[in-house]
Amino acid sequence: MYNMDKLYEAVSERGHVCVGLDTAAEYIPEKEFRCSPAEAVLAYNKAIIDATADIAACYKVQIAYYEEMGLAGLQTYAATLKYLGAKGALVIADIKRGDIADTAGRYARAHFEGDFEADFVTLSPYLGMDSIEPWLQWADKKGKGAFVLLRTSNKGRRDFQELELKGKPGENAAAGKKLCDAVGDKLSQAAAAHLGGHGYGAFGAVVGADPQSPQEREEAAAIRAALPNLFFLIPGYGAQGGAASDAALLLREGNGGVVNASRSILKAWQNRAAAAGVDPGSADNAFAASAARQAAIEMRDAILRAAR
Amino acid sequence: MYNMDKLYEAVSERGHVCVGLDTAAEYIPEKEFRCSPAEAVLAYNKAIIDATADIAACYKVQIAYYEEMGLAGLQTYAATLKYLGAKGALVIADIKRGDIADTAGRYARAHFEGDFEADFVTLSPYLGMDSIEPWLQWADKKGKGAFVLLRTSNKGRRDFQELELKGKPGENAAAGKKLCDAVGDKLSQAAAAHLGGHGYGAFGAVVGADPQSPQEREEAAAIRAALPNLFFLIPGYGAQGGAASDAALLLREGNGGVVNASRSILKAWQNRAAAAGVDPGSADNAFAASAARQAAIEMRDAILRAAR
Repeated sequence: MYNMDKLYEAVSERGHVCVGLDTAAEYIPEKEFRCSPAEAVLAYNKAIIDATADIAACYKVQIAYYEEMGLAGLQTYAATLKYLGAKGALVIADIKRGDIADTAGRYARAHFEGDFEADFVTLSPYLGMDSIEPWLQWADKKGKGAFVLLRTSNKGRRDFQELELKGKPGENAAAGKKLCDAVGDKLSQAAAAHLGGHGYGAFGAVVGADPQSPQEREEAAAIRAALPNLFFLIPGYGAQGGAASDAALLLREGNGGVVNASRSILKAWQNRAAAAGVDPGSADNAFAASAARQAAIEMRDAILRAAR
Repeated sequence: MYNMDKLYEAVSERGHVCVGLDTAAEYIPEKEFRCSPAEAVLAYNKAIIDATADIAACYKVQIAYYEEMGLAGLQTYAATLKYLGAKGALVIADIKRGDIADTAGRYARAHFEGDFEADFVTLSPYLGMDSIEPWLQWADKKGKGAFVLLRTSNKGRRDFQELELKGKPGENAAAGKKLCDAVGDKLSQAAAAHLGGHGYGAFGAVVGADPQSPQEREEAAAIRAALPNLFFLIPGYGAQGGAASDAALLLREGNGGVVNASRSILKAWQNRAAAAGVDPGSADNAFAASAARQAAIEMRDAILRAAR
């Protein structure tokens, strides 16, 4: 059974929320800062995980926030993955790797077994499909999955992802499409060779939800319709500006994607303290975890309503 | 002074060789394997560095080979960077990062200061220029540099990098070009805002040398001519199939690029043992380091001849 099948089932049971553990030290209540930043982040992650495990479909851990703290940060990264694994949670390692074949194989071993083992990774397609294939071998071997960057939620996506391709009828299958469509076509072909029990490939795509012009909303719906066998990891919700209705455009028959939120969950305690007139200095991890749980529930329900 | 200026001067003094420390445990003489793989790799790296420091223009350390060994591997990665720094060597961290702005800023802190500090990094452009810019701020702050993937040396580059873009006269500056040309144009514009003393931007591009058809040789020469302000990191030499004459197409006025070789230097001792009828089991790090030095000298001289 592919991890992607398990993720589909988690969405059916618990909704679409992917809790992003992009945990910067400055998101943590000051009161809890009696140890090293790396230790404080680990304690905070555990509190957030305990408070959201029955709400979240999965977790996404952005390795940059841990690398920033050096070796101690990567110990916290490994310990966070281990804690999630022990809870039975599904984990996406947000590492956006992309390298040539032999190197990709080594990266895959690094992130699909050992200290940094995760259920899914994120990958970047710029080098081409031979940089993706070494990861796919792990789908049949251990059920592992990946989400490949297709259309991201930042403004800079227009620089390259949205460039239009030249049409050469009969020669170029990508004729009249954008670069991100060409990436989608290749991924969809590859996913067809690793199809899980719920109709989705063992690996999917990253497609961002962000404030959409009417034209961009149409494009999002078109991407979803064109790629029925790709499960989507959808960033851009909440602090990055995307709303539940934007995210819902990228879902399919009530499933087919998880929606990531990081800051709007991790930092929910700050708004809650302000709204309640509570001194932020008196907040602790328990207060933050309770606010995170509430934010995750509200997000889950908003997406479920929008996806109806 | 930008690190790219220092790299230009290193090439003028010592030639174009970039020694790739993509050190897999299996490249090391068995005799030296009396400790953990991570410790054996560190000892081997030190031997190779000591034997090539006066030949190499710089070193490239591919982090995947270290991540594969988990936390212990990343300790060896950090210790290798520190050893190179103490020698005064210029170091490219081959990490191919590419992420949205806030995350890119955190990655930049991770790799431009602290445990993993390097002089240069490699970056992937798929997300767009706002994923590159946070790194560029470090050029003026600390002289740091980057090489952005433009045209790689793997077969899969044809999947996306070489797709032709649609021309819309007056609307699309990339008209009639390939994706990799559009990346080059954007990088060249950005480099013009961070120009060093030798006419090259603080950050350059990754352009692969590999067996070229006549058409591909023309394309390589065209890329070099079109981007005079970008210094190139040139992979694909040696074990990956590229020859000195392929690499020379990507150089400019005897400078303008470094050529990376990893396996053909790190594993040179295996061929040397076979040629000399020496039992591979009797080889040690000193034997391997001497073979690596010889391979680096031959590579340096071959490229200098071809670049004339």
